[in-house]
Amino acid sequence: MDLLQPAMIVVDLGCSSGQNTLTFVSKVIKVIGRDIGGESKRNPVELQFFLNDLPGNDFNHVFGSLERFKKMTAAEHKENTLVPPFYIAGLPGSYYTRLFPRQSCHLFHSSYCLHWRSQVPAGLEGGREYLNEGNIYIAKTTPAVVAELYRQQFQKDMLLFLKLRYEELVVGGQMVLTFLGRKYEDIYNKGYLNHPCGLLARSLQSLVEEGLVKKEKLDSFNLPIYTPSVNEVVAVVAQTGSFNVSHIKLFESNWDPHDDSKGDEVQNSVQSGINIAKCLRAVFESLLASHFGESLLNKLFEKCAYYVAEHLQWGEGKYLLICVSLKRT
Amino acid sequence: MDLLQPAMIVVDLGCSSGQNTLTFVSKVIKVIGRDIGGESKRNPVELQFFLNDLPGNDFNHVFGSLERFKKMTAAEHKENTLVPPFYIAGLPGSYYTRLFPRQSCHLFHSSYCLHWRSQVPAGLEGGREYLNEGNIYIAKTTPAVVAELYRQQFQKDMLLFLKLRYEELVVGGQMVLTFLGRKYEDIYNKGYLNHPCGLLARSLQSLVEEGLVKKEKLDSFNLPIYTPSVNEVVAVVAQTGSFNVSHIKLFESNWDPHDDSKGDEVQNSVQSGINIAKCLRAVFESLLASHFGESLLNKLFEKCAYYVAEHLQWGEGKYLLICVSLKRT
Repeated sequence: MDLLQPAMIVVDLGCSSGQNTLTFVSKVIKVIGRDIGGESKRNPVELQFFLNDLPGNDFNHVFGSLERFKKMTAAEHKENTLVPPFYIAGLPGSYYTRLFPRQSCHLFHSSYCLHWRSQVPAGLEGGREYLNEGNIYIAKTTPAVVAELYRQQFQKDMLLFLKLRYEELVVGGQMVLTFLGRKYEDIYNKGYLNHPCGLLARSLQSLVEEGLVKKEKLDSFNLPIYTPSVNEVVAVVAQTGSFNVSHIKLFESNWDPHDDSKGDEVQNSVQSGINIAKCLRAVFESLLASHFGESLLNKLFEKCAYYVAEHLQWGEGKYLLICVSLKRT
Repeated sequence: MDLLQPAMIVVDLGCSSGQNTLTFVSKVIKVIGRDIGGESKRNPVELQFFLNDLPGNDFNHVFGSLERFKKMTAAEHKENTLVPPFYIAGLPGSYYTRLFPRQSCHLFHSSYCLHWRSQVPAGLEGGREYLNEGNIYIAKTTPAVVAELYRQQFQKDMLLFLKLRYEELVVGGQMVLTFLGRKYEDIYNKGYLNHPCGLLARSLQSLVEEGLVKKEKLDSFNLPIYTPSVNEVVAVVAQTGSFNVSHIKLFESNWDPHDDSKGDEVQNSVQSGINIAKCLRAVFESLLASHFGESLLNKLFEKCAYYVAEHLQWGEGKYLLICVSLKRT
């Protein structure tokens, strides 16, 4: 990568506005700081970060925390390494559109985002027939045609994403992308209750049974996500011909972010149920509120915590994540 | 300016978050769009805009308006010119600090900002004696030593500003800066009641007389602004040796933004008083609230509208603005 340019341009796609928003920025600063020595000490690489998310993201909150972040970073680096000069900007917009001038970025990063599709799979949304009755994502009872629509939406989105980032990256520029994936090619294998979305669907079904949600409301709702297999990712990348896969890895992470254990057993399934329902709420709240109404959410996630806890007594509580590192040709 | 680079980087310093925030962006797009023809039609210059203001600025509001702005821009350009590809980022931070990597910007713009100092003049703030009794800026009764402190703060800030932007601009890069200035070298000439700050001070004095504000509160308050003369600006630029003055111009603008008339006479001084007090409130509200308390503001700006209206019956209602265009050597 050509770093003779004035600065290294680094982008975090889907930065969000929580306490993890600046984690990636902090790591890049540490790594680059470690390399500053000798000649480059006098003229260190400067870093320009762009924090990207949809325009509705709370950028004010992120910007409000930058002063403290800068002070903390300076304090942490005092002893060991030099802090490279760094500058942080916010960039609102969907990563399914062009975000940067051509060949202006060196590194794209994205964490827990690229399983989001640009829309509910074309053909599923707004139809008069409900093809995915009772479900909100691919489940055991999802017809093959719906699973195929999901797969096609993934391919279309991912091709678009790669094409856009190809235009924005310098030659040799890189991407490190981490997103939810799956282990088996068979999309139905452990595709249902093992997946938190299945348990969220179960919670909605329960509200339908109680007469609190109309069946039609549930039938017409589908999540704009897709969890591809490693092979599906590799195939899309190959199709573009614009990137080399430097690394690709599948790894596991606990549903419960407070649970650091490696094993399969969950210590306290009730508490984990509550923690996981909270996470799901943070992620899906706005989508669910705009379709089902705000007033339903407390009840929905109470149920969700219950079903997750029930599941954890006998089933796995692991996400599968794909981490892929791509180099632009 | 070297535009063979992928993109032209344009920065608006002190962008604020009102309905004028995107005016400058819109103008640059129009000018560049007009130039797109022939060879460059196939490979037009791309524009990357940075909207800068302090971290407390409402960037969420600005970002929320971008979608509509993009649509409007596309619609406006349909007939006449091509829209150059453009990208808009937000950059929180004071322009009295480094904001960008070295030599990474082509054009800086700033409108109605650079009369703000980085702080209340050093030596005035926090002292036990109040050197500028009864005033909030330079007024007829301001001691010469205080006026000198104001002038020194301007020089220090402006030197710092120019030094920082010099580092960030490419060779040949430009700045267009518009800020409040004054006509006469004598800082006291038309320096008091002719200036809106003088009328704001008069309003505060009136609250002191009524016992609503302690005299000490007013005496300890000084605005962190300074309106230099053209010669003072030229002298600071010459001192840096880093910029050539392409143009510098002094021009007038009505205090009342709703009054487009060219003459000296104000049509409706009462209505203009109200309009102008509203503007002053928008500009100074947060500073005044944090020193005098929120609860006083309604009363203060009612009085201010009265004194402004009274003034407009016999006096001028014009700001003097300096517009300077600088080229980096």
